[in-house]
Amino acid sequence: MFNIASPEDIKAGKVTDVYFERAINVLKEKGVNKYVKAEFVVKKFPSNYQWGVFAGLDEVLKLLEDLPVTLKAMPEGTIFRTNEPVMTIEGMYLDFAVYETAILGLICQASGIATKSARCKLAAGDKIVVHFGARRMHPAITPMIDRSSYIGGCDGVATPIGAKLLGIPASGTMPHAMILLFGDTLEAVKAFDEVIDPKVPRIALIDTFADEKFEAIRIAEALGDKLYGVRLDTPSSRRGNFLAILKEVRWELDLRGFKNVKIFVSGGVDEEVIKQLNEVVDAYGVGTTISSAPVLDFAMDIVEIEGKPIAKRGKLSGEKTSLCE
Amino acid sequence: MFNIASPEDIKAGKVTDVYFERAINVLKEKGVNKYVKAEFVVKKFPSNYQWGVFAGLDEVLKLLEDLPVTLKAMPEGTIFRTNEPVMTIEGMYLDFAVYETAILGLICQASGIATKSARCKLAAGDKIVVHFGARRMHPAITPMIDRSSYIGGCDGVATPIGAKLLGIPASGTMPHAMILLFGDTLEAVKAFDEVIDPKVPRIALIDTFADEKFEAIRIAEALGDKLYGVRLDTPSSRRGNFLAILKEVRWELDLRGFKNVKIFVSGGVDEEVIKQLNEVVDAYGVGTTISSAPVLDFAMDIVEIEGKPIAKRGKLSGEKTSLCE
Amino acid sequence: MFNIASPEDIKAGKVTDVYFERAINVLKEKGVNKYVKAEFVVKKFPSNYQWGVFAGLDEVLKLLEDLPVTLKAMPEGTIFRTNEPVMTIEGMYLDFAVYETAILGLICQASGIATKSARCKLAAGDKIVVHFGARRMHPAITPMIDRSSYIGGCDGVATPIGAKLLGIPASGTMPHAMILLFGDTLEAVKAFDEVIDPKVPRIALIDTFADEKFEAIRIAEALGDKLYGVRLDTPSSRRGNFLAILKEVRWELDLRGFKNVKIFVSGGVDEEVIKQLNEVVDAYGVGTTISSAPVLDFAMDIVEIEGKPIAKRGKLSGEKTSLCE
Amino acid sequence: MFNIASPEDIKAGKVTDVYFERAINVLKEKGVNKYVKAEFVVKKFPSNYQWGVFAGLDEVLKLLEDLPVTLKAMPEGTIFRTNEPVMTIEGMYLDFAVYETAILGLICQASGIATKSARCKLAAGDKIVVHFGARRMHPAITPMIDRSSYIGGCDGVATPIGAKLLGIPASGTMPHAMILLFGDTLEAVKAFDEVIDPKVPRIALIDTFADEKFEAIRIAEALGDKLYGVRLDTPSSRRGNFLAILKEVRWELDLRGFKNVKIFVSGGVDEEVIKQLNEVVDAYGVGTTISSAPVLDFAMDIVEIEGKPIAKRGKLSGEKTSLCE
Amino acid sequence: MFNIASPEDIKAGKVTDVYFERAINVLKEKGVNKYVKAEFVVKKFPSNYQWGVFAGLDEVLKLLEDLPVTLKAMPEGTIFRTNEPVMTIEGMYLDFAVYETAILGLICQASGIATKSARCKLAAGDKIVVHFGARRMHPAITPMIDRSSYIGGCDGVATPIGAKLLGIPASGTMPHAMILLFGDTLEAVKAFDEVIDPKVPRIALIDTFADEKFEAIRIAEALGDKLYGVRLDTPSSRRGNFLAILKEVRWELDLRGFKNVKIFVSGGVDEEVIKQLNEVVDAYGVGTTISSAPVLDFAMDIVEIEGKPIAKRGKLSGEKTSLCE
Amino acid sequence: MFNIASPEDIKAGKVTDVYFERAINVLKEKGVNKYVKAEFVVKKFPSNYQWGVFAGLDEVLKLLEDLPVTLKAMPEGTIFRTNEPVMTIEGMYLDFAVYETAILGLICQASGIATKSARCKLAAGDKIVVHFGARRMHPAITPMIDRSSYIGGCDGVATPIGAKLLGIPASGTMPHAMILLFGDTLEAVKAFDEVIDPKVPRIALIDTFADEKFEAIRIAEALGDKLYGVRLDTPSSRRGNFLAILKEVRWELDLRGFKNVKIFVSGGVDEEVIKQLNEVVDAYGVGTTISSAPVLDFAMDIVEIEGKPIAKRGKLSGEKTSLCE
Repeated sequence: MFNIASPEDIKAGKVTDVYFERAINVLKEKGVNKYVKAEFVVKKFPSNYQWGVFAGLDEVLKLLEDLPVTLKAMPEGTIFRTNEPVMTIEGMYLDFAVYETAILGLICQASGIATKSARCKLAAGDKIVVHFGARRMHPAITPMIDRSSYIGGCDGVATPIGAKLLGIPASGTMPHAMILLFGDTLEAVKAFDEVIDPKVPRIALIDTFADEKFEAIRIAEALGDKLYGVRLDTPSSRRGNFLAILKEVRWELDLRGFKNVKIFVSGGVDEEVIKQLNEVVDAYGVGTTISSAPVLDFAMDIVEIEGKPIAKRGKLSGEKTSLCE
Repeated sequence: MFNIASPEDIKAGKVTDVYFERAINVLKEKGVNKYVKAEFVVKKFPSNYQWGVFAGLDEVLKLLEDLPVTLKAMPEGTIFRTNEPVMTIEGMYLDFAVYETAILGLICQASGIATKSARCKLAAGDKIVVHFGARRMHPAITPMIDRSSYIGGCDGVATPIGAKLLGIPASGTMPHAMILLFGDTLEAVKAFDEVIDPKVPRIALIDTFADEKFEAIRIAEALGDKLYGVRLDTPSSRRGNFLAILKEVRWELDLRGFKNVKIFVSGGVDEEVIKQLNEVVDAYGVGTTISSAPVLDFAMDIVEIEGKPIAKRGKLSGEKTSLCE
Repeated sequence: MFNIASPEDIKAGKVTDVYFERAINVLKEKGVNKYVKAEFVVKKFPSNYQWGVFAGLDEVLKLLEDLPVTLKAMPEGTIFRTNEPVMTIEGMYLDFAVYETAILGLICQASGIATKSARCKLAAGDKIVVHFGARRMHPAITPMIDRSSYIGGCDGVATPIGAKLLGIPASGTMPHAMILLFGDTLEAVKAFDEVIDPKVPRIALIDTFADEKFEAIRIAEALGDKLYGVRLDTPSSRRGNFLAILKEVRWELDLRGFKNVKIFVSGGVDEEVIKQLNEVVDAYGVGTTISSAPVLDFAMDIVEIEGKPIAKRGKLSGEKTSLCE
Repeated sequence: MFNIASPEDIKAGKVTDVYFERAINVLKEKGVNKYVKAEFVVKKFPSNYQWGVFAGLDEVLKLLEDLPVTLKAMPEGTIFRTNEPVMTIEGMYLDFAVYETAILGLICQASGIATKSARCKLAAGDKIVVHFGARRMHPAITPMIDRSSYIGGCDGVATPIGAKLLGIPASGTMPHAMILLFGDTLEAVKAFDEVIDPKVPRIALIDTFADEKFEAIRIAEALGDKLYGVRLDTPSSRRGNFLAILKEVRWELDLRGFKNVKIFVSGGVDEEVIKQLNEVVDAYGVGTTISSAPVLDFAMDIVEIEGKPIAKRGKLSGEKTSLCE
Repeated sequence: MFNIASPEDIKAGKVTDVYFERAINVLKEKGVNKYVKAEFVVKKFPSNYQWGVFAGLDEVLKLLEDLPVTLKAMPEGTIFRTNEPVMTIEGMYLDFAVYETAILGLICQASGIATKSARCKLAAGDKIVVHFGARRMHPAITPMIDRSSYIGGCDGVATPIGAKLLGIPASGTMPHAMILLFGDTLEAVKAFDEVIDPKVPRIALIDTFADEKFEAIRIAEALGDKLYGVRLDTPSSRRGNFLAILKEVRWELDLRGFKNVKIFVSGGVDEEVIKQLNEVVDAYGVGTTISSAPVLDFAMDIVEIEGKPIAKRGKLSGEKTSLCE
Repeated sequence: MFNIASPEDIKAGKVTDVYFERAINVLKEKGVNKYVKAEFVVKKFPSNYQWGVFAGLDEVLKLLEDLPVTLKAMPEGTIFRTNEPVMTIEGMYLDFAVYETAILGLICQASGIATKSARCKLAAGDKIVVHFGARRMHPAITPMIDRSSYIGGCDGVATPIGAKLLGIPASGTMPHAMILLFGDTLEAVKAFDEVIDPKVPRIALIDTFADEKFEAIRIAEALGDKLYGVRLDTPSSRRGNFLAILKEVRWELDLRGFKNVKIFVSGGVDEEVIKQLNEVVDAYGVGTTISSAPVLDFAMDIVEIEGKPIAKRGKLSGEKTSLCE
């Protein structure tokens, strides 16, 4: 129905590069099979990162659970450096050769997402970071993305399916569409307040029709103590100096006694933006930069064959010792 | 088993941002439902792109096939610009509100991949571009990625599952692992030649143990006419001037009468690398840059409600006319 | 009362550098007086200008009108280059030595303003440029500044005193203060429309309280044909992409039939800003950049004494010939 | 006679933007007049300044002396930051609306000059800075410019009219013209020494005909103890490494026993030049950069109306507290 | 006496890298000697040059004149590109192995000097370029440097020993020392004019004591038609805008009827400086940049052994065909 | 025979600029001869050097040994700064005028080489630096270059003639040519080991045919304890990340027990490269950058004539005191 591989396809080795199939055929036909040790390492991080966060192991374990191979790995969530193995696999080569593509796929993307999430959370310190990026990637992998963002440090995720996997409540405010259908921000916020479970915090989206400053004052004066926060998803054409806008909203709210109203920001947020805005923002919705984070380019490097160190040009042979077992 | 959503989950609206669920509850409870027209547009491309290639429509159609909505769209593979709608959807808002997250997910990622593939193919001209990047992304979406790369212009894909979806043969050469297990490039190549279906071109990987120049000569002299090409996946530490290495290999092959032997390149290839190397290379295996291509940030902008133009700040209201119907 | 020199002070030579007074004393005491020819030239324009516009001559003529000297000059408004004399003065040195400071002051500032105005008008082409910068410079020289801006090419000026000197009507829209006192933009615009002479165009200032897009629609729908234009003085914190905001306002006005409503822009406008916005803007209010324009650094270079060429190091001796007489 | 506004014009409100006249008419006609509090602040300094020096208050007081308004202000010469009010005005709006243009004009230019002067003096430390820039601006405002430069920290001014206002003697050396008329630097210096009051220090201008090094030696050897200093106004075409030239002159004077002869520099001097040359220079004549200093862009922001905080978009409402009363 | 190798040392193979001596011993001892063909090529020019000029061949021929080897070469003065052989040598390896160091030394330095000279002459067009740089390099190689500069395009050289080798007269003006000993430029110039053979052009050095402008006028008025030119060796501390100084001198000379007096420039001149000054300068003395020009990094690459193509990694094997024989 | 000046030519004053010959003639003819003191100083170092190393004095002493002049100088090898005299000469001007060109040539080039050598050695710390650059400069000056490199800090030189002058053994490994003639690196190394005096360390050149990593292992396993080191002269086209290649070779050698095998690097080495590679390299062969090092632009400045301070424009007159006598 959708263009996706089923769990059965993956377990059956159908998601593989065809040259592995051919290599397996050649090796079998020639009677060549050897005990091999291989390491999973990143030689160079994307975008000048200095470290990565390992994720995706749970799916690797499911993939390999019935195979006669030995796998050692760091726990998910561990910070690692270039050339530091996050996993090693050993066994007869033909027992796992067909899975190299899938194993790498599971850890490259998940670790990329976890790493970017960690960078955002590190920038935000004790402010809240919620993953909002489901809409940027194929829906089939939403649970994996939400889970990886949480491993990396996000405080919450926006989809019920991801939240359920993690055993936490989903996080969200209100969409522009609802306000457009009501035709007025205040009316929409009031309706939300009447209908929705009081446990859900009231966070008004205030950039749909009006300038954020006057809309924030209007909503705060109307909702009083019931207002938990305001969200600014300010369009980029109006973001001349977003920090100044945020300070202005904070100032006007404080001046009128609304010091408890939190400020949420979304739209184009990444770790650099967080660093610039963090003095005044209370929570961030981070989307694209997390869900389509740069992948980490793991390679599965053979480092020993039949107990003897060997590695192709550009790789270090022999087992490394820094892996947590 | 894996951290993925099933087709049934997606169809059931489980892959959605929770605020859509809440908005739907509020609107239903308040009896607000309206006839809405919305457009899917990109306001800003990533990385200074000047255009995008639309993909993902086939899955959108499957997602919406039973709903009372009207969808107009460009054909997949169409080139589009910023602010140019690629799709419009119209209908009663509550009939499709829950799917906004999933629809966007289907087109943002697929179009991002198709666009990057087109950029690579454009750079390569009549040289071959094959998608090799399955190992960088979750295996569940390998078929979608292979398909999107092909829509964007790739000449082939590496996975059997993707190739089958497209109705083409999978493409590949041979992995370093096979050569390491044989212990010598020439032995591995000879075994490959003996075992594998003669329809598969013999493309020798020549950077495992030796310098590419002497290995290319050795393999070519041993295989003679049976050799279709050589692949250089040269490690980055040895790529001081990769173009010079390639020209040197070409020169030495030509000097000895092997003008028909093609040169394949893989490893860190993107459209910029292709431009630099294209004068001497015959085919490229392109991986990470395609499979984890930057997504295109589509938004679903409401532009009319009950037939009247309306749009939030920063968006243009009213229907645009450039969409191919 | 104010810290200014009166016309009588200036005519009496009181505005001079003291070293001229001393030099005159020395020369007189020693009986040295000679027939001197001097040129007024700019060696280097500010800010990489390629040319200047000459202004200030009218006041120079008034200053020197009773002196036994010969003055040749370009007409005001003439374009000139570096090292091209705009004026020459000749006579016995002691007859005009005391006025060098004042003569230079009259042409350096006026020419600087005229030049900057010309640069703005050149950028604006057939769009309107009005000088709005009286508030940046001492009020005593407002008439000179307005006059110089007009010589340089401005289409209008904002002060009645400057306009009167030029024999044109003063230009203006409405201040933020009026809207703040009325408490609502539409009420203020309606009151303006009721009270003010119908010959004055109705140009509504639309950035005080609300987002420009919705305020523009609201005012246009209320005033209909009576609305001549809207002015955006958008605060810099909201100028993320000012051109996009202007296009959005233009689009929404046009969509609703208000194609005749003009768009005026003010606030931080200079020739570079004009070039960026000119495709959509109809008129500009230009302030600081004109009224406090960089002065042109004229020098009065002695080039002949008693008919023989002589000039200090770094200056070319002898009379130049490019001056229009 | 000259294109200037008289003190009476200014007091009569003739130097105003016409839109204030119109707003006053509308408000009067509609019977709208309110008690208003407004602050004078700079949001952004020119040229990356971090602070400004307030000046121009004395003329503001003269302008408003008979009006029923309350003015609070910092003393002139106070250092202030962005968004820090330098003055507040309160009263019925129609009582002072017409003066906004003039008030701003008085403080924007004077404070700009004082700020630049302070920057130069800060760079010069205990070396002397004299304002020499009268020749760059309209002679009518010379007294205001000289006064503002002195508030900012200049040690002296060059015009008798400015010096008289400040109650200090005017400062100066000798002009190139005098030396050209004498035909030789030494003859001119000797004549100066014979004629001029011995209280005036003998400072020889040494760049007219000869290289500074040999001219400095020649003058020093001729005048002996009577020589107070030498001035280098070296033309820019000869300023390859001005610091090296100055050190060479210093070296040659010292070597011959003229350690007491001071070195004065003029021509193109600003705070950056001062920083580069200060190790060897004793005094600076600073011209254009002070007299046509960038203005400070004060705005008069309404922050309260009838005792309630209100401010337009982009401004903070309510009274700030950092103003010295 | 000096630290130099004599011609006999060089011919005897004493100027060689010791590893050639050792290699020769090993090969002889092992009875390995082969017929070798080697090419002399540059892989990368210094400083982004696009081409080189070949020089040094005459000395190579003298070095090899009695050896049983075949040498083919471009003529000296030929322009060549990277990877284009300028010479090939063939013969039994042991017959010439000991000379590789010396052969390369002869062509690397000479070609570097010729190339830089050509770049200067190309920049100067029909203006004169004379090599003045003998004082920067060991006196033993002055003749080779002068000769190479002449091959590259210099119009003359400054040393009698170099000029004699080339069969041209030596070029020169007068040194600062002579003027310092006379104590006055004009006296020195007059003495020169009295003493020196009238065939030598009278070129006065005018920057020793005075500013170039007034000194040029003074000398020209004193010598009249006998003055051929003036030389400006202006110290760098006085070169603020050297082109402006040169134009000023030209202007003042022309104004007084000395249009025939040529302008010579020396001191820090290279091809970039020539491009900047060439509109007004008539002749250049170019020193350091030519005599210590970047060497061209020729390598002697073995490309055939016993008639079969072979080359080390990074070099192209087999004979190339572009060499002029 | 070669284009060089003999020691007799140099002593006879034939290597001189012709203007000195002419100046001498004029001065003699006019009877002008004076007691002169001159200093040798550098005003500006090349390439942002902060200091120089003085060399060349021994040859200056030989040049002047019979002249009635007084020479004071720093010892060779002394570090000096700009404007600090390294030598002074005094005497009757006509006694040494003809030698200015040659004296400068002796110290400018030698000091340039010594300075660059010191920079390389400083970067290398306790790692070895050997001068390998004889092949870039005329063979006649090889001894002077080797000697100057050794004064600057090089640990060894490559030519027997230079080594003999210094009284040290010449240093070297083996050339590519020898390996090409043997056709295999290991065979060549074995032959070297058999033939060459055991005192010469066995340093195998490992980049001719194969990748450095596998060649290093192969040679080390074959030679065992007899192998002193490996040399990587890796071609630039293969130097993608040379540090990574070196670390890989080090890792693989260490893993197999060859911790004593040293790593030598040559090819394109200068002080910047040394800084990048020094953590893993044991010794460097440095060529072009030392032998054709930028010369130091000494000038011979006359600072006193007949005991009175005098210097041309741009120079400081009088004797300086910092010279070590």
